[in-house]
Amino acid sequence: MECNDYNITRDLERKNLNLNPLQRGGVLPREAREALHDFGDGYSVCDYCSGRLDEIAKPSISGFLEDLSKFLKVDDVRTTHGARESKFIVMHSICEPGDVIVVDGNAHYTTHLAAERAGLEIIEVPNSRYPEFRVDMDVYEETLKNSIDEYGEIKLAVLTHVDGDYGNLTDAKSFGNFCNKLNVPSLLNCAYSMGRLPIDANGWNIDFVVGSGHKSMAASGPIGVLGMKHEWAETLLKRSPRHTKKEIEMLGCTSRGAPIATLMASLPHVVSRVNNWNEEVELSRSFVAKLEEIEGITQLGIRPTNHDLVRFDTPILHEISKIHPRKGFFLYEELKSRNIVGIKRGQTEWFKCSTYGMSKDQRDYITDSFKEIVEKFAK
Amino acid sequence: MECNDYNITRDLERKNLNLNPLQRGGVLPREAREALHDFGDGYSVCDYCSGRLDEIAKPSISGFLEDLSKFLKVDDVRTTHGARESKFIVMHSICEPGDVIVVDGNAHYTTHLAAERAGLEIIEVPNSRYPEFRVDMDVYEETLKNSIDEYGEIKLAVLTHVDGDYGNLTDAKSFGNFCNKLNVPSLLNCAYSMGRLPIDANGWNIDFVVGSGHKSMAASGPIGVLGMKHEWAETLLKRSPRHTKKEIEMLGCTSRGAPIATLMASLPHVVSRVNNWNEEVELSRSFVAKLEEIEGITQLGIRPTNHDLVRFDTPILHEISKIHPRKGFFLYEELKSRNIVGIKRGQTEWFKCSTYGMSKDQRDYITDSFKEIVEKFAK
Ligand SMILES: Cc1ncc(COP(=O)(O)O)c(C=O)c1O
Ligand SMILES: Cc1ncc(COP(=O)(O)O)c(C=O)c1O
Repeated sequence: MECNDYNITRDLERKNLNLNPLQRGGVLPREAREALHDFGDGYSVCDYCSGRLDEIAKPSISGFLEDLSKFLKVDDVRTTHGARESKFIVMHSICEPGDVIVVDGNAHYTTHLAAERAGLEIIEVPNSRYPEFRVDMDVYEETLKNSIDEYGEIKLAVLTHVDGDYGNLTDAKSFGNFCNKLNVPSLLNCAYSMGRLPIDANGWNIDFVVGSGHKSMAASGPIGVLGMKHEWAETLLKRSPRHTKKEIEMLGCTSRGAPIATLMASLPHVVSRVNNWNEEVELSRSFVAKLEEIEGITQLGIRPTNHDLVRFDTPILHEISKIHPRKGFFLYEELKSRNIVGIKRGQTEWFKCSTYGMSKDQRDYITDSFKEIVEKFAK
Repeated sequence: MECNDYNITRDLERKNLNLNPLQRGGVLPREAREALHDFGDGYSVCDYCSGRLDEIAKPSISGFLEDLSKFLKVDDVRTTHGARESKFIVMHSICEPGDVIVVDGNAHYTTHLAAERAGLEIIEVPNSRYPEFRVDMDVYEETLKNSIDEYGEIKLAVLTHVDGDYGNLTDAKSFGNFCNKLNVPSLLNCAYSMGRLPIDANGWNIDFVVGSGHKSMAASGPIGVLGMKHEWAETLLKRSPRHTKKEIEMLGCTSRGAPIATLMASLPHVVSRVNNWNEEVELSRSFVAKLEEIEGITQLGIRPTNHDLVRFDTPILHEISKIHPRKGFFLYEELKSRNIVGIKRGQTEWFKCSTYGMSKDQRDYITDSFKEIVEKFAK
């Protein structure tokens, strides 16, 4: 048979400044590119396996997991295929179909899908609505208490540490503590935080932390992280009665290939970048301040921002789209001609973006470009 | 914190002839190495996503899935994280905990784990035992009928197309047909066949076919394939009521990174190598014949073999290990010194191996090396 041409090339990231928040934390550092090259083939990490992925000594997956658990301050840790797969593992192993869980109102769609796949009912904690969309811990605690009153038992409480819509950072420690007090297992979704900012699972009293290697840990996708308090290991990491080395929820082995090699190679880089998180937030804030110098561009979410992912209301861009011959496409095209990408084609009323990891000059080039575009077209 | 040294290098495949059957079908061709390079970063395939991984147009995942379904002669197809994850998706979506399924006696441990994770009971079809370990379709059909009599309903019948212990090829067409007649959904595990030999899912009347990209389709792991008759799509690919584009069992998106780019890049190569399968089997048979020239080495499983994975009883090597100063390690070390790897350290009573994709000269070098080693040490 003749195959279609799949157009399998990508130079978007090499040739442009990419504002897509999804892509900023997954860019591979040099060490990870080398690992990708060495571990490209099939089951490359399995050469010296004697039955347990997490115990492989060459490359030292066991040594890596030890470091990872220290880094996250968590008792036990495994790699999975992604944050969503980690969430599903938790829900599938500690809940029964029909059970009720509580989830914050800024949860990622994958939290909802994991719950739907596990047959669970979701109670939602409302956010504070426009313009902050904040998830308040008082509101969460109250919703959780009411849910316990109503349903008798709540099997899991999920909090998005940093959400993907507004980049709002939530109060994990308060969450961990009231969940613990109310005897409800807590899951913190760190897809947008683990690998960007410090995680202290035990310090925050969190039962389960999940992370995303390709989203925030400079790894090649798909790969996720699942950390847990030791008391959960017996349930989540239960072994097969028939194949006694193999963990059932992991289907024996999870990330058996290049992604785990890149996650491992990136860990030292990630550990060190997390130490510079405050500077990153400063850069993000000054990026926001500069964009907001344009009249008709306003940051939504908590102010000042505590994250690199920021969302803007951009009525001025929408105004321009109404009079511009290229309509809603003008913004994408003007940015593209300046080698800036990552804002969806046709979108002008609002956008979210991230400049994570960019230099100050690159960020200034981006804000200057926005200014130039608005000046060029605004009446 | 200081990270451990994880020793993240691999030149095993580059510098040696690797007999490990797990590794032979996952070696990347040049095109896939290029895709790996281009799509190394994080969520690299997601630049132009508008909500559905399987519908992405750049790179053309949609065009690829169209070709893949033609290649497998199956109605609908998705990528997953591996053969085991595909099996779990099928079991989780069409069975309920407590249901009974029938599985062949040569099933891979991941079939058992997928069933255990889904809470299913397994009835096993015995194989024919030493020396062939054949799974006969008459025996399968009888076991299936008896199980229906005993349990009322059998929710799924699983057959390993080519097993990982003996490389026995089973009769998929006969299996598909009697399952259909008995009204039991059939799943064919093609982890060791899809990408090596032709698959004709619809021609064989099979409900579900699963494959492994890193095992047999020249892809970087982890990535799997799940094909199904169209009548199952509504159940398996059910969309979320809340996020109406997203398929629940896929948790929205599965292989969101480099592995799918390599699988796509490799497909034309894989399509063409499957056409040469008969030659591959001939080469495997002559490899077996040459090794069997050594007294005390005998192939197990169906003879002549129909696959590149072959298992040998090797009493002569075990005899040598009893008198050799390096004991059971002698074989590994002698082979290693000849740049031949992939047989476990310490193993001498039997081994399985594959020379898939090697040239005739390379295969001859390997059989000659075994002869040399045996001659050197046998009394
Ligand atoms: C908050 C949040 N959680 C989870 C995910 C999903 O991560 P993964 O691809 O690792 O499942 C995302 C991805 O966008 C996210 O933003
Ligand atoms: C017969 C068979 N099925 C399934 C698997 C697992 O494949 P995957 O890693 O894609 O889950 C293997 C791997 O060894 C196998 O030999």
